[in-house]
Amino acid sequence: MNSTKTINLKNRPNGMPELKDFDFITTEVPELQKGEVLLSTKYISVDPYLRGRMSDAPSYIAPFEINQPIVSGMIAEVIESKNSNFSAGEFVSGMLEWKETQVATTDGLLKVDANQAPLSTYLGILGMTGLTAYLGLTEIGKPKKGETLLVSGAAGAVGSVVGQIGKILGLRVVGIAGTDEKVEMLKSEFGFDEGINYKTTENMTKAIAEACPNGVDVYFDNVGGKISEAAFFNINKFSRTINCGAISVYNNTEAPKSISVQPFLIKKSSSMQGFVIFDFVDKHPAGVKQLTEWLSAGKLTYSETIREGFETIPQAFLDLFVGKNKGKMVVKL
Amino acid sequence: MNSTKTINLKNRPNGMPELKDFDFITTEVPELQKGEVLLSTKYISVDPYLRGRMSDAPSYIAPFEINQPIVSGMIAEVIESKNSNFSAGEFVSGMLEWKETQVATTDGLLKVDANQAPLSTYLGILGMTGLTAYLGLTEIGKPKKGETLLVSGAAGAVGSVVGQIGKILGLRVVGIAGTDEKVEMLKSEFGFDEGINYKTTENMTKAIAEACPNGVDVYFDNVGGKISEAAFFNINKFSRTINCGAISVYNNTEAPKSISVQPFLIKKSSSMQGFVIFDFVDKHPAGVKQLTEWLSAGKLTYSETIREGFETIPQAFLDLFVGKNKGKMVVKL
Repeated sequence: MNSTKTINLKNRPNGMPELKDFDFITTEVPELQKGEVLLSTKYISVDPYLRGRMSDAPSYIAPFEINQPIVSGMIAEVIESKNSNFSAGEFVSGMLEWKETQVATTDGLLKVDANQAPLSTYLGILGMTGLTAYLGLTEIGKPKKGETLLVSGAAGAVGSVVGQIGKILGLRVVGIAGTDEKVEMLKSEFGFDEGINYKTTENMTKAIAEACPNGVDVYFDNVGGKISEAAFFNINKFSRTINCGAISVYNNTEAPKSISVQPFLIKKSSSMQGFVIFDFVDKHPAGVKQLTEWLSAGKLTYSETIREGFETIPQAFLDLFVGKNKGKMVVKL
Repeated sequence: MNSTKTINLKNRPNGMPELKDFDFITTEVPELQKGEVLLSTKYISVDPYLRGRMSDAPSYIAPFEINQPIVSGMIAEVIESKNSNFSAGEFVSGMLEWKETQVATTDGLLKVDANQAPLSTYLGILGMTGLTAYLGLTEIGKPKKGETLLVSGAAGAVGSVVGQIGKILGLRVVGIAGTDEKVEMLKSEFGFDEGINYKTTENMTKAIAEACPNGVDVYFDNVGGKISEAAFFNINKFSRTINCGAISVYNNTEAPKSISVQPFLIKKSSSMQGFVIFDFVDKHPAGVKQLTEWLSAGKLTYSETIREGFETIPQAFLDLFVGKNKGKMVVKL
């Protein structure tokens, strides 16, 4: 019987996760049963939302178990198959365990075509990242041509796609990011109209007002916290906020406090809505089709940070919380 | 030329309004011009939202001017008319000045029928109060039979109507109020399933969980602040919060802080939306028709606190913020 490197959750992180919360062990690869496939990992997605599953607080998705492997989006190659729908040499995407090699049932596995697009994009712009950007913006944000879209975490995997889709849809797009280099990239690579470096800007409320002279109609919020407070001072009547993430507070050990949003929502007849991509499962195929069209037509570009080697996975995950990634962070094996 | 008692805004209140922020003066009643009516005030509505207009912070409606009369919803009798559509002896509702007698154009004046319902109800359950409850609950809350509705400020003018409409629509209805007497009234008079006294309950999160064993699907929020924090710990997947008011923070001099709602909204794919009744102007006639039907059929009851005398208006307004009203507060002249 073969064995494989595996990464387990060792402890539930207290606040910011640390390397010691992860355990590198060797586990056995069981014998392949009928209907199953043997997979060799190619790319592993690390995502901020995984932090939530490391806690045992109730959430939209069950927590990871202690001393069990972490699970995230992955691309793998089929090495051996006892399922007539999958053949050795094919590539699949799915929610898989942090292992170099694993046996999996084929529930939820999707074949991906290495000839149509680079394999890593199926974890990013053609995968959960792209769908989150597209469906969050269109289904919840309901943007209208000519409106102003503000994006926080704009240089991140989701944010950079949100901004580009905003431009395709005819919006004025302003992004917020944490370094001058990222802000420059928003404009030069992703076509944002304006960018704001929140780390060097003293008065964010004023900076947003200047970058959004007609106010903010749609706020795609990846970060929460103080940046969002500044955004709320600039929202327009009937504006929509898409609560996609709150990375700024994921590692807080106490429920974080912010300025109460209720008075802003009332004054502006404004809405906020949270979502996860699983809410729109029926819209995923059409979403992937649209994203693939835009990508093929050169209307969308994407940014990836690719780390290499199984051992780098936990650090790659930790680096998300200090903004070391540009665009989608994946680990290549 | 006649004169009339008038109440002006003297100062913009700093925090909680006080009697000294109002000025009782005598003003002249100008001569009636063609198209105008001379009105004698019968009932004056005092409402929490007026606090917002006393500040000069940007809002959905222009602030009151210093040394000018306060304006609110009123019922008046036509004393003299130079408008062929209005006759002496008729009653009207409209946004009018805090005066015993006034000359008004007929823009926005609606005739009301003293024989169909008591005149004060046109300021309450058949007026802005009833419409706020009905349209907020149905247009934003979109409740489905069998769901659980939580109402804060439940014994207030809007809250008590929201709960009753919830019962008509087949919901489990739980109300939060600030005295045992009010909680009792929610159940005995307004048909709420459960009531919670937030002033005597130590752990509101737990109390809401117990009163809402299936969680909260629709939260009609009249208060904001700490009560809303407790509510957020109990919201269901895809729940909707209607931000109708935030009376708990209207008098704060600094932007109030609360637990960040974003993580709750994301975890639960939940929405919040603020509104004012003017957002749904096209739905007002149908709303009044529905409310009148329910009222005539005995399906809706209402509670009023009626103060008497022009001099009592400012105090009646102040008393809203310490919960001295049950249901709609009006002043009768």
